[in-house]
Amino acid sequence: MINSTMDVFVDLPSTQKGSHLSRNLEVISELVDQSVRNPVSGLEVLAANICRLLLEKHDYASQAEVNVVGDYFLERSSPNGKSSLESFKLIAKARNRRGNGLVKLIGVEVIGMTACPCAMETIRTRHEELVPNGGPDVPVITHNQRNVSSVLMEVPEELDVEANDLLNIVEASFSSPTYEILKRGAEADVVVQAHKNPKFVEDVVREILGRILDRYQHLPDEILVTVRSESEESIHKHNAFAERVTTLGDLRK
Amino acid sequence: MINSTMDVFVDLPSTQKGSHLSRNLEVISELVDQSVRNPVSGLEVLAANICRLLLEKHDYASQAEVNVVGDYFLERSSPNGKSSLESFKLIAKARNRRGNGLVKLIGVEVIGMTACPCAMETIRTRHEELVPNGGPDVPVITHNQRNVSSVLMEVPEELDVEANDLLNIVEASFSSPTYEILKRGAEADVVVQAHKNPKFVEDVVREILGRILDRYQHLPDEILVTVRSESEESIHKHNAFAERVTTLGDLRK
Amino acid sequence: MINSTMDVFVDLPSTQKGSHLSRNLEVISELVDQSVRNPVSGLEVLAANICRLLLEKHDYASQAEVNVVGDYFLERSSPNGKSSLESFKLIAKARNRRGNGLVKLIGVEVIGMTACPCAMETIRTRHEELVPNGGPDVPVITHNQRNVSSVLMEVPEELDVEANDLLNIVEASFSSPTYEILKRGAEADVVVQAHKNPKFVEDVVREILGRILDRYQHLPDEILVTVRSESEESIHKHNAFAERVTTLGDLRK
Amino acid sequence: MINSTMDVFVDLPSTQKGSHLSRNLEVISELVDQSVRNPVSGLEVLAANICRLLLEKHDYASQAEVNVVGDYFLERSSPNGKSSLESFKLIAKARNRRGNGLVKLIGVEVIGMTACPCAMETIRTRHEELVPNGGPDVPVITHNQRNVSSVLMEVPEELDVEANDLLNIVEASFSSPTYEILKRGAEADVVVQAHKNPKFVEDVVREILGRILDRYQHLPDEILVTVRSESEESIHKHNAFAERVTTLGDLRK
Repeated sequence: MINSTMDVFVDLPSTQKGSHLSRNLEVISELVDQSVRNPVSGLEVLAANICRLLLEKHDYASQAEVNVVGDYFLERSSPNGKSSLESFKLIAKARNRRGNGLVKLIGVEVIGMTACPCAMETIRTRHEELVPNGGPDVPVITHNQRNVSSVLMEVPEELDVEANDLLNIVEASFSSPTYEILKRGAEADVVVQAHKNPKFVEDVVREILGRILDRYQHLPDEILVTVRSESEESIHKHNAFAERVTTLGDLRK
Repeated sequence: MINSTMDVFVDLPSTQKGSHLSRNLEVISELVDQSVRNPVSGLEVLAANICRLLLEKHDYASQAEVNVVGDYFLERSSPNGKSSLESFKLIAKARNRRGNGLVKLIGVEVIGMTACPCAMETIRTRHEELVPNGGPDVPVITHNQRNVSSVLMEVPEELDVEANDLLNIVEASFSSPTYEILKRGAEADVVVQAHKNPKFVEDVVREILGRILDRYQHLPDEILVTVRSESEESIHKHNAFAERVTTLGDLRK
Repeated sequence: MINSTMDVFVDLPSTQKGSHLSRNLEVISELVDQSVRNPVSGLEVLAANICRLLLEKHDYASQAEVNVVGDYFLERSSPNGKSSLESFKLIAKARNRRGNGLVKLIGVEVIGMTACPCAMETIRTRHEELVPNGGPDVPVITHNQRNVSSVLMEVPEELDVEANDLLNIVEASFSSPTYEILKRGAEADVVVQAHKNPKFVEDVVREILGRILDRYQHLPDEILVTVRSESEESIHKHNAFAERVTTLGDLRK
Repeated sequence: MINSTMDVFVDLPSTQKGSHLSRNLEVISELVDQSVRNPVSGLEVLAANICRLLLEKHDYASQAEVNVVGDYFLERSSPNGKSSLESFKLIAKARNRRGNGLVKLIGVEVIGMTACPCAMETIRTRHEELVPNGGPDVPVITHNQRNVSSVLMEVPEELDVEANDLLNIVEASFSSPTYEILKRGAEADVVVQAHKNPKFVEDVVREILGRILDRYQHLPDEILVTVRSESEESIHKHNAFAERVTTLGDLRK
């Protein structure tokens, strides 16, 4: 883990004037120190441990919540096989109600690329001269842009979801992943791939949900899934946005 | 003018412990009030007036500086003739040295679209089947993206530069301007136009400078011009950026 | 209204591939134009009107949501009677379910000042020499800081909540309101007032809720109220934050 | 080093249409990889190495510039001796002109606390009953707030300036440093210390420059020093800001 910001919350009973805020920082400090010396398996485990210790230290509180967002880097191979470090955001949350067990949320936010199917179709229909001569399946021009998509899964503490799997799912759901280093040939490959997979923000959300369904067949129906996709439209000054909040059970219907 | 943020500065001689900060707010308040009742011709005139009054009120100071950035909206016609309000940033600065006269800076920051010439060329060369059948001058696919470009001109107080002219110059220098409302046909027109004018960030800077040279032939050589262009690359997670700081005299060489 | 950002959403049935995004911009454009010519009573009415028209134009959608945040300025009198324009954020939302009527949310976000009761008490107890000689009720030193607090009320469309009333309620709940222009005497008055009303973020939330209860005795139990307060702690690099989401009914218990 | 953002620039001769942008990413990637395996002594050395390699790889360019900002954490002891990790920003830049050698810039940006001398003086004069009974040297109430200050030094490549020294200099120049963990007694100590050292933003800048002068007596006159201080005024909605750009030579006069 490279860098992160952390928000922590505990509730306050009506009988108490204020919260002992310095305890929050002591809990964070203690567990971050431990995690440096004795690495936990993931950021969501750190969030869960902090959340549990918060309820111990604030004995007047009935619930605690911890939200962490960190910048991560993973090695990726571009189309020409050249590897580069690609950044993404790792999101971990934990919520703890006294006596009710702890819920973890684990998620990723990833930058990719979308190419618009609508402009492509209008141009294919109208501008005969712009249609490539390779036949009807070959991509025509359209607008494409940077897209930021995220998925967040809420699971009981004893179940595991790997951030790496979520990252792979989101990257596979763009028109194309993006890369920090692209020599000319690889740049062309990325552009061609994106135009062969034109996608609205709504499509990106649907594809992520489809892959979640495949990958997590072993998880129970109650698991909550939140998926968002936002395209920084190259032809507009505003963004296009889609979101679905659902459960694995609803997806299975 | 719709909304703005303002930074004001005065210098402090070594003989004085601190600046009378409340005077700054009084000057701003007085002149913004006046400008509501008796509109000045532009944001840079408001900046100049505040800058002059600052030196009057802070008699210990030898120089003053005012920077204002405001959100503006102007009516624009998209390719299908439909009009929409398009937003841009208006930048105005004023610098006043006691005894040396006042310098105004006026500029705009505009959102547009660039299409990459490099990927287009690689694809044209390599993928014969992706080349449109209308001949070699017809655009092939490439990556395109949102671009933010700005121009800032520093002129003596008695000379005028119109923000509207600067806005037109920047919009004409993108691969295509962008629009808030685009029905299907107009969306296709914008995409086609952008692909017929592929441009690097370096090209956008060059084109803005070329149009500045044409438009301001009557202005003296000393006028300072700053042009910046930044593309939110759709195939990368990082941006591409170009800048040139120069004078009309250097451009005329 | 001075400036604003707007997010609009409609849902998408499973039978439809994508949303007709350009309709959203047409709806906004049409109603903002009308509101300039024929001013509506408030930003939440504009949000409600846009929300209603969205469901008309997107006949496949079953719900729509509109969120607007705008920068406002209101004239305020500082302790020495000098008036200045003070800025705050006006928040308006509308949610419309086809067949279920429309819900409006109206809120304000205001900057003020809090002085910490805890450090004041520790210093009063420990440092006898720092206690003012005017007696035990006179304020001693403590840390104070900028605080940002907000209140948001969700009401059925036919009921009204005035943003001005909410603004007065939040300003009265800080240790002291803050002002853009303060001559020396008024500056001292603000500091003294803040130290006579030391408050945790939890106290600010409680006081806002108490005043909401007083002011809106005529509104029904179901009205949802969200109150947040965040202090940019001067003795820490992190902020302190409190929030309560409740109903008028729960507050009345 | 924990996390950082990096901007890199090379110039472009008039004879060349565009810059080979992918080379920039290759240079960064190569040197960041090396620095993980073979740690350099500091972030400014990394910036210098990237800057030098940029000119090698872009043979058409005559100058290169690299700017890096990273989040750092250092262990600090609060007044009660409890240690905590305190965050600050580390700033490193390098500028390289072909044939002219390389200039490094190293700097830090630190969060601290300022207490206002002006309100304190007004209250001391006017409100006799608020003056502590310990005598005229004992602090009275005033407004205090979060302050962000930075210092940046530009040195030839062969000279060294330690970020740790700069950090100590800035922390010593606030009314008081701030700490992430403060139990009650330590909280009171920080508040008392800040009120015994009331400071305008102008004072913070002056104190930093004074300590720079003491610490760097061995450095030559040409060294450029930039110092900034910004207070998030607790009694206003706007900030107070001071800046001085000078050389060691000018400071020595």
